[in-house]
This record gives sequence, structure tokens and C-alpha cells, in this order.
Amino acid sequence: MYSIVVEHIYLLVIVTLISVLQNAFFALKVEKEGNCQNIRTSAFERVCCANRNCMDAYPTFLAVMWCAGLCLNQAPAAFAGIIYLVVRQKYFVGYMGQTSQSTPGYMFGKRILFFLLMMCIVGIFNYLLVHYYGSDYKEYVETITSAASALLLIP
Amino acid sequence: MYSIVVEHIYLLVIVTLISVLQNAFFALKVEKEGNCQNIRTSAFERVCCANRNCMDAYPTFLAVMWCAGLCLNQAPAAFAGIIYLVVRQKYFVGYMGQTSQSTPGYMFGKRILFFLLMMCIVGIFNYLLVHYYGSDYKEYVETITSAASALLLIP
Amino acid sequence: MYSIVVEHIYLLVIVTLISVLQNAFFALKVEKEGNCQNIRTSAFERVCCANRNCMDAYPTFLAVMWCAGLCLNQAPAAFAGIIYLVVRQKYFVGYMGQTSQSTPGYMFGKRILFFLLMMCIVGIFNYLLVHYYGSDYKEYVETITSAASALLLIP
Repeated sequence: MYSIVVEHIYLLVIVTLISVLQNAFFALKVEKEGNCQNIRTSAFERVCCANRNCMDAYPTFLAVMWCAGLCLNQAPAAFAGIIYLVVRQKYFVGYMGQTSQSTPGYMFGKRILFFLLMMCIVGIFNYLLVHYYGSDYKEYVETITSAASALLLIP
Repeated sequence: MYSIVVEHIYLLVIVTLISVLQNAFFALKVEKEGNCQNIRTSAFERVCCANRNCMDAYPTFLAVMWCAGLCLNQAPAAFAGIIYLVVRQKYFVGYMGQTSQSTPGYMFGKRILFFLLMMCIVGIFNYLLVHYYGSDYKEYVETITSAASALLLIP
Repeated sequence: MYSIVVEHIYLLVIVTLISVLQNAFFALKVEKEGNCQNIRTSAFERVCCANRNCMDAYPTFLAVMWCAGLCLNQAPAAFAGIIYLVVRQKYFVGYMGQTSQSTPGYMFGKRILFFLLMMCIVGIFNYLLVHYYGSDYKEYVETITSAASALLLIP
């Protein structure tokens, strides 16, 4: 039973590890800016703000990705998670480079989180359908979801 | 085995999804205030502060709810989670409406988190009892917890 | 099946509960400082900053600890989690007591998080090895990890 559990979640665990490494990268940036320069500079404030916005959205992202992976299928959920991490990296770098007048907004990766949310809803709907009617569309749904996750690559 | 897992957590997943939607609502409010008006206004600071307090407590809430749901029973845990979300919504709206002199405090939903914490402790205690003595009070405990969760509705 | 799951995670649940209690302690400190004294004092800012740094790292810690516990073995993961909580307590108390010139840095417990990260990677590597080659080093790895977790006590 134990290995089955690991089989069902190992892709999610890998994406989680990558996100943790990214968090450590962000935290190192914050610490470096805070140590080297003065505390009240604009650069420190920008990197601090970017880190805070990323951290604010992090538990939401983790919760949605794990729910989507557990309820439906781990492969598209992990793929969407990877793309979310790429978007977050771009957001963080873009926040640091720009001037404070034209900072990007508070939210990012809305489309990916929305896709993961839809996966959760489809997974639960599918479970309820199976539970009450006995018909199982799981395989069809998984195929469609895997195909739809490729659409996320379109910018 | 897979469907059993979904059967044991699907209520928790639904509550998590609702909380994610609420987070998105909060983030949209923050983005709207930050875009439309000036950055340093009192309204933006209030909505930012409310969002931050909610986000600070969010991982704690998720961890306690999932532990309570996994260790004991998902139905009362999900019910308490729903009530927590209602309390959080009230807190956020109350924070935005009031003047900055009389903002509500930093913490909210203490009673619900305490109830979920007690559920976790009872669940682990019950597991240890079953493991070492073989006596199982699980059904009694679940009945009592379900009844106790109704008490949360009393303000 | 249900009791097996609880058997595999109950130590992780206990550590999570202790961390939730610690979060509540931090939040109470923040609320007390915010209520009793003036809002813009140095003490309030320090406790607020310490709480925020702890909260920023909290989801990362939870994710890594649970992944390590699920992928490999819960006992060393829970042990490392306990040590992380002790380090966090020290960090918080040290932040409050010192003057604002010599505050400790943004990150803490790097070594413990790195250890948990290594546990995850070893667990996934081990799973892939078992899956593709059929050789199982799980028991050896668990013994080595348990021994290595004792090394974390060396300051």
C-alpha cells in the first residue's frame, strides 16, 4: 500500500521540491539585498514586495495543485505546476528589474490556478457521478485534461 | 484504493476550493484598490493589511483542517472549515469598512481553530489507544464531534 | 486501510499541531503588542517583522516535512520538524529581545530544511529505483537517515 501512495504523488512531490528551491532562491535575494545595502532603499523594497506577493500566493498554489493531483491525475497537475513556477520566476525577475512606477500587478498565474481549480472540480464531480450512478468517465476526463494542459503553453 | 482516498477527503477538497476562491476574491480587491487609487491611501493600506492577516493565518487553517479531517472524520472538519471561511469573510469586510482607529484585531476564528485542534488531538489519542490497547472508541468520538460541531454556530 | 494511513502520518500530525500552537503563540504576541502600546513603536515593528518572517517560511516548512515524511519515513522527518520549531522559537525570541540594529537575518533553519529536502530526493530516487530496477534499498536508506537526523543536534 505504501508504494502505491508514492506512485500516485511522486510527480507532485518533485514539483513541490522545485518550488521550495525557488522559495529559497527568493529568500536569498531578500537577505542579500537586506545585508549589502541600506534597509530603506528602493531595490530592497521592490525585492521584499515581490517576495511577499509570491509568498502570499504560495499556500493557495500548493493546495490547488495537490487537490488537483489527488482528485484527478498527477501528470497534468504537475505540468501546470511547473508552468506556474516558470511564470512566478518571470514575475519575480520582472519585479526586480523595473522601476517602481511600472511594477506588475499583485496577481500572476491566474490562468494556471484557474485550470487547476477546474481539474479539482471535474475530479470531485466525476467521483460523485461514479459514487451515485456507477458510470465512470475517469479515463475520458483524464485524456481531455492532459490535452488541455498543453494549451497552457500558449501565452 | 484510489477511490477510497477520494471518498475520505472530497469534502475537505471542496472546502479548500472555496477557500481558494475566497483568496482570489481578496487578491482581486487588493489589486483593484492598488490600481484605481493612489498607492498610499488609507483604503489601500486597510485592504492590504486585512489581506495580509488573512494570508498569515491561511496555512495554519489548512494544516489543522486537513489533519483533523484525516485523523478523525471529514464531515465535522469540513463543516468547521466552512464556518471559518464565513468568519474570515466577515473579518475582511469589517476591516475594509471601518476607520483605521477601530480595526478589528489580528486574530480571528480562534474558537474554530481550537475546535479543529481538539479534533486532531482526539483523533491521535484514539489511534494510540486502538494501537496499544485494542479498544476502539472511534464511533463514539465521531458522533460526539459531529454533535459538538453544531455548537460552533452559537456566536 | 484507514488506520494504516494514520499509522504512517501520526508523528507528522503531532509536529504540525505543535507548530500550530507556536503560530498561535506568535500571533498572540503580535496582538498584545498591537493592543497595549502605540502602533508605531519599535517593539511592535520588531515583533511584527519576526512574525512575518516566520509565517513566510511556514508553508515551505510544512510542504517539505510532509513530503519527506510521506516519501521516506516519518520518524526522522518529525524529529527534524521538532528541531526546526525549536530553532524558530529561538529566532523569534532573539528578534524581540535585540535592538533593531542587530536583528538576525531573514532566513533560519536552513540546515534542517536542506536535510528534509535531501530526504525527499532520496525517497523519490529510491522509489524510481524500485520501480524500474526492482532493487529495494529502502531499509538501508531509512537506517542511514535516522542516524543522520541525530547529527542535526550538533549546533
